[in-house]
Amino acid sequence: MRRTGPGVILFGVPLDLTASYRTGTRIGPQQIRAAGEALEDYSLALDRDVRQVKVIDQGDVELPAGNLHGSLAKIEEEVTTVLEKRMAFVALGGEHLITLPLITAALSRYPDLVVLQMDAHADLAERYDGEALTHATVMRRVAELLGPKRLVQLGIRSATAEEAAFAREQTHFFPGAPGDVAQILRILAGRPVYLSIDIDVVDPAFAPGVGNPEPGGWSSGELFQMLSVMADLDVVGMDLVEVCPPYDPAGITAALAAKILRDSLLTFFYHA
Amino acid sequence: MRRTGPGVILFGVPLDLTASYRTGTRIGPQQIRAAGEALEDYSLALDRDVRQVKVIDQGDVELPAGNLHGSLAKIEEEVTTVLEKRMAFVALGGEHLITLPLITAALSRYPDLVVLQMDAHADLAERYDGEALTHATVMRRVAELLGPKRLVQLGIRSATAEEAAFAREQTHFFPGAPGDVAQILRILAGRPVYLSIDIDVVDPAFAPGVGNPEPGGWSSGELFQMLSVMADLDVVGMDLVEVCPPYDPAGITAALAAKILRDSLLTFFYHA
Amino acid sequence: MRRTGPGVILFGVPLDLTASYRTGTRIGPQQIRAAGEALEDYSLALDRDVRQVKVIDQGDVELPAGNLHGSLAKIEEEVTTVLEKRMAFVALGGEHLITLPLITAALSRYPDLVVLQMDAHADLAERYDGEALTHATVMRRVAELLGPKRLVQLGIRSATAEEAAFAREQTHFFPGAPGDVAQILRILAGRPVYLSIDIDVVDPAFAPGVGNPEPGGWSSGELFQMLSVMADLDVVGMDLVEVCPPYDPAGITAALAAKILRDSLLTFFYHA
Amino acid sequence: MRRTGPGVILFGVPLDLTASYRTGTRIGPQQIRAAGEALEDYSLALDRDVRQVKVIDQGDVELPAGNLHGSLAKIEEEVTTVLEKRMAFVALGGEHLITLPLITAALSRYPDLVVLQMDAHADLAERYDGEALTHATVMRRVAELLGPKRLVQLGIRSATAEEAAFAREQTHFFPGAPGDVAQILRILAGRPVYLSIDIDVVDPAFAPGVGNPEPGGWSSGELFQMLSVMADLDVVGMDLVEVCPPYDPAGITAALAAKILRDSLLTFFYHA
Amino acid sequence: MRRTGPGVILFGVPLDLTASYRTGTRIGPQQIRAAGEALEDYSLALDRDVRQVKVIDQGDVELPAGNLHGSLAKIEEEVTTVLEKRMAFVALGGEHLITLPLITAALSRYPDLVVLQMDAHADLAERYDGEALTHATVMRRVAELLGPKRLVQLGIRSATAEEAAFAREQTHFFPGAPGDVAQILRILAGRPVYLSIDIDVVDPAFAPGVGNPEPGGWSSGELFQMLSVMADLDVVGMDLVEVCPPYDPAGITAALAAKILRDSLLTFFYHA
Amino acid sequence: MRRTGPGVILFGVPLDLTASYRTGTRIGPQQIRAAGEALEDYSLALDRDVRQVKVIDQGDVELPAGNLHGSLAKIEEEVTTVLEKRMAFVALGGEHLITLPLITAALSRYPDLVVLQMDAHADLAERYDGEALTHATVMRRVAELLGPKRLVQLGIRSATAEEAAFAREQTHFFPGAPGDVAQILRILAGRPVYLSIDIDVVDPAFAPGVGNPEPGGWSSGELFQMLSVMADLDVVGMDLVEVCPPYDPAGITAALAAKILRDSLLTFFYHA
Repeated sequence: MRRTGPGVILFGVPLDLTASYRTGTRIGPQQIRAAGEALEDYSLALDRDVRQVKVIDQGDVELPAGNLHGSLAKIEEEVTTVLEKRMAFVALGGEHLITLPLITAALSRYPDLVVLQMDAHADLAERYDGEALTHATVMRRVAELLGPKRLVQLGIRSATAEEAAFAREQTHFFPGAPGDVAQILRILAGRPVYLSIDIDVVDPAFAPGVGNPEPGGWSSGELFQMLSVMADLDVVGMDLVEVCPPYDPAGITAALAAKILRDSLLTFFYHA
Repeated sequence: MRRTGPGVILFGVPLDLTASYRTGTRIGPQQIRAAGEALEDYSLALDRDVRQVKVIDQGDVELPAGNLHGSLAKIEEEVTTVLEKRMAFVALGGEHLITLPLITAALSRYPDLVVLQMDAHADLAERYDGEALTHATVMRRVAELLGPKRLVQLGIRSATAEEAAFAREQTHFFPGAPGDVAQILRILAGRPVYLSIDIDVVDPAFAPGVGNPEPGGWSSGELFQMLSVMADLDVVGMDLVEVCPPYDPAGITAALAAKILRDSLLTFFYHA
Repeated sequence: MRRTGPGVILFGVPLDLTASYRTGTRIGPQQIRAAGEALEDYSLALDRDVRQVKVIDQGDVELPAGNLHGSLAKIEEEVTTVLEKRMAFVALGGEHLITLPLITAALSRYPDLVVLQMDAHADLAERYDGEALTHATVMRRVAELLGPKRLVQLGIRSATAEEAAFAREQTHFFPGAPGDVAQILRILAGRPVYLSIDIDVVDPAFAPGVGNPEPGGWSSGELFQMLSVMADLDVVGMDLVEVCPPYDPAGITAALAAKILRDSLLTFFYHA
Repeated sequence: MRRTGPGVILFGVPLDLTASYRTGTRIGPQQIRAAGEALEDYSLALDRDVRQVKVIDQGDVELPAGNLHGSLAKIEEEVTTVLEKRMAFVALGGEHLITLPLITAALSRYPDLVVLQMDAHADLAERYDGEALTHATVMRRVAELLGPKRLVQLGIRSATAEEAAFAREQTHFFPGAPGDVAQILRILAGRPVYLSIDIDVVDPAFAPGVGNPEPGGWSSGELFQMLSVMADLDVVGMDLVEVCPPYDPAGITAALAAKILRDSLLTFFYHA
Repeated sequence: MRRTGPGVILFGVPLDLTASYRTGTRIGPQQIRAAGEALEDYSLALDRDVRQVKVIDQGDVELPAGNLHGSLAKIEEEVTTVLEKRMAFVALGGEHLITLPLITAALSRYPDLVVLQMDAHADLAERYDGEALTHATVMRRVAELLGPKRLVQLGIRSATAEEAAFAREQTHFFPGAPGDVAQILRILAGRPVYLSIDIDVVDPAFAPGVGNPEPGGWSSGELFQMLSVMADLDVVGMDLVEVCPPYDPAGITAALAAKILRDSLLTFFYHA
Repeated sequence: MRRTGPGVILFGVPLDLTASYRTGTRIGPQQIRAAGEALEDYSLALDRDVRQVKVIDQGDVELPAGNLHGSLAKIEEEVTTVLEKRMAFVALGGEHLITLPLITAALSRYPDLVVLQMDAHADLAERYDGEALTHATVMRRVAELLGPKRLVQLGIRSATAEEAAFAREQTHFFPGAPGDVAQILRILAGRPVYLSIDIDVVDPAFAPGVGNPEPGGWSSGELFQMLSVMADLDVVGMDLVEVCPPYDPAGITAALAAKILRDSLLTFFYHA
């Protein structure tokens, strides 16, 4: 049984402040939406139509320019309003740091929340450039919020030695290729799940437009397969982050994100 | 035994009128030819040399600017001349709608023609933007011409619910990954085959320069594998469509198309 | 036991003179280094940190503009100095022809040298455009230097009929997908190995920024898998060539090369 | 005194069917609007604010895919509705052929209409590729509709000999650099004016994203100067055409178009 | 007589936090330096060689990721150290907000400092998105620091009505084309001058790679002319900001910035 | 009276060996030809049609890969054949070094040859990277061949101090903006002229696709103006070099070169 009522709130979160290498994720939401217009509403693989999902697109959250703490507060506030309506939500990034205020709010409402992260990078650094709140430390902050073993990490192929050590102790850590998922399902089943997809979990061949391309990732087919395996989870909120259009000259990253969005809506938020 | 004599006519068909999203396929033929110049004549995998295939490149068909009906008539006329010489042909698109006049002409000559389509999209819409003749309705028109169960569709991963319903009844429909092909071969064996390859049947990672990138497709290796399995078919005509160079900044889509062209020539039109 | 002492010399070789189609490899070394800065020092897959490898980056070899023979002599001289110190080296291309002076020098020092080439193209032409010293003839020259059956070629998917014939007689030739490697290891084990990686051995989807994109190649995952299988070889020198940044708009080819470089350093030149 | 009431209707006309060289103008309207969002509402040069102009953006006209005659009819019908409300309009192309149905409708309402065209190309061909209705013949059709000497052509730097001959007889023809404009104003003053701006009237340096880049044009400053000189004309309708985003990698053509749009609104449709 | 001793400190300031539209200025400094390597050291126009200017490049200031206040403090601190050595400095942005801490420090040392800004935008907003510290408010903050009529603004062609009103009262405001400069020189002569060049003061044709392309600007020749007219000013510090490489596909913006940098060094910091 | 008979030989010279910064000029000829197809045959400004000039396009000279001396010999040989037929020629580069063998051959036939160079760079270095034969030394070699004061240099805005000194003594040196040309015409009138146009003489805004973008150059309009002033010269051979397509994303450099080619043919090689 789903904890959230029918319908799902969609919004963009154009935060793009802590990137170290390539910037541009702030125009991610608009490019994903534009790519979505070229996509069929009906999914042949899922035999479902997104017009049957009640999606309310609230547009992009307006963030105060250059103000990190103000931005995080604004995001948390925005999503709290959504949660109070007992609705599920999907946030389009923007950089991965948006996951922190989103999970903070979700955890308030769902104290037994577990988090499923699909990502090339562990994002578990204690500090990054001396800072606590960055795209590279976000899942460390999340893990601290949640407590041990409530964060499941899939697809990770980049970390520091320290992050790897932390992961082995504190998270459920499944580096590399998507493997046997029975164990993952056992951890997550029956609990409220927050799903965070960093688009760089797929290989740069399939998603070149990302902040930190990390070769050796999943194919997009493998990601869709993973989503379909997760179909019975009770996802109460999710994000899709790090689409970076300036490095996506052919638009295939935005097209992939749009399809992940559509299929996630059909998989997790479809009320027959 | 082949129905066509030795030699194959090659021509470009720079039709680019009905695209809904991205345009540019009209410069497809010239870019495929340019990419072909950088390719070896000899195929290591097939141990054959394209210089041993008698290919007559007639250049691009001259189409009347903006005139859809005039263009379709011109294409049909052009290919009819080829067919009268008992020669096989390969047409380089241009958008997928070119397949309609090509098949119309081929069907005149080969009344028992069957069509093999490799494509991400079913292209089976009854109408598109209210129009009967578009890249999105082309295989519906083809299916109507052929009658039931003479169109084989491979690799399809996008359709509307209506198209999927039509496909289940009227075509041989093999969505998704290339599977066991014995069944496909049984349908096609011994009959004159028209082969239509929409380059978007491969994943956008391998072919970003297309009109409608649809993630989750074949790898290019899987496409070459499929071609090789089909080697014994009697292909009397084929097309390779939807290469869209403005969205192919590194030229890999044109390079792939050039290799598909070469290997198709070596596979289907090689007379030892 | 390793023939070379701890530490490895890294240098760029911006030779870009004999390309037939696309130029630009001369800025390969600088782009690979730039991409490397965005990569973790620690490899999660190998559980090793590149800061523990003593890498001395000597920058790019200064080549006399437009002077092919002068350039080759300069490269050979440069690497001879390195070899005299009993150190291993990694050269970043530049075009594939740089492999010739590098192997010439290495063979002087290691008369029983064997060469392992990973490449889409055989590069075994006797002459190219009438010239003996080009990116397309380089491995023929190498094979002549080494004598029969001391060159192992992996991943080849493009050659002329003449090159294929030469390969079958004179080299260990493993075209296509990476297969069973036991046989390869038997040939190379215990001998000093020179490893030459042409980045185009991976498919253009994963490495679009190359001089001659040849569809149907390895995934980058398959390349990393191959490197890991080769871990016990005694690599005394290696190169990584043909990264062509002008055709790499999203930077994923440089990112892949940077990761191949890091993982090669960790695999072949790590002294615990 | 203005013939039209306060307020102006804005709409996009994504026609892109008759281009001979580069396609992509159908996404012109959306890119111009997006660029406009980054522009100040207030013009420093004109000391006016676009928020004081009542602009009603009706979005893009929906055109039947690939259907030229249907598209032209749809455009004419759409603008006729606007004209019946006694409102002025601005149409964003799309290709230059859209000017024909727009002027056809405007001429119905304003029989004494004169047309001011700013363009690199005369667009006066009798036929193009055998066709009467194309971007290259559009002003010939317009001139035929209007009768002699009611079309004023500025900035023209490309034509055939036949077009030049026609222009000398039938239009007011001012090729090359913007010169003394007193004569032009005398022709147009006091009459209802239709203004057609093909963005390629400015040099490709300032507007690279066009269908047919023709070097040697105006600077964008010269265009703004020309607009300001025309301030007292009674413009009853205008278009801004041929912005071709696929060839505008830095977005400067769309930015220029957005500023031309804003300043045109402030210049011609401002009711103090 | 110059207030600063011989030699000039150069450093990059990769701040990129408050952009509203396009991001990427953080890689400005590295791209300007790279472009500078392809430029002659000798200026033919000035008949001076930059090797005769003692330039100490301190690299980029390390900024705490996403931390705006920390970044501004770090920049101010860095430049204060330079000023204490009685040296002049040149800062390469990064976004325009870096000018605020740079001027804050310079004003401490030179209480009679005047500021010369060349820019397309006034940057005089009181608040932007509710924030006081952004690229769009920076010169308002500077004007407040300096007091009335100590800021000279050249080339401005974009502002809000409020900014224009403020400028008329509080700054020396010279919008549009570079005009008669005698008046400007009278304001600045004999006083310590801070020069801030936003690269967007030139037209997007000459500098497409900027955050906010504003058509109708100076040619690059006009900018060089302006620099040469200013040669006798005593510039104690300067910045060159808003080069945004992701929107500079041909590298001409970085090339222009590198030449502005070289010629500024030769013009303002040359000690014969 | 013209020294050459009617007709002109056109050929491409895809030499691209000595560039120091950006490579890619070898595909210049093919891109210029492709851009030329989109250009009118008739020049409105000149009122002449290129179809009335007997142009024989011999395609590209085939150059031995990577072989500089062999390439230069081949070019000289090729053009000598043309000169023996008493025909004029136009060579499309390729890099600027091609001018050396072209002038060597032309000087053999026309011992009183003078050379008119339009270029951003003096190209008068004695050596470059230690080499005598490069794009940066080419006009020094030419000046040595010709002897003093037979080389006229226009538009130069980049040189070393040594080159400037050499130019003042040995060439007719007109740096910067195109000025009064009467003096230039006096030098050249009545003599056989070789015209060498390096496309970078125009500003990078108008010609971004060049090897070494040097800001502050002519507009393309100024170049066309200069050509028209030179109309009475007896040009016996010319080249147009340094178009570098990989850095010309919108194709405006190739379009400009195509128009320079057309207008040069109409200006210098038109036999009424």
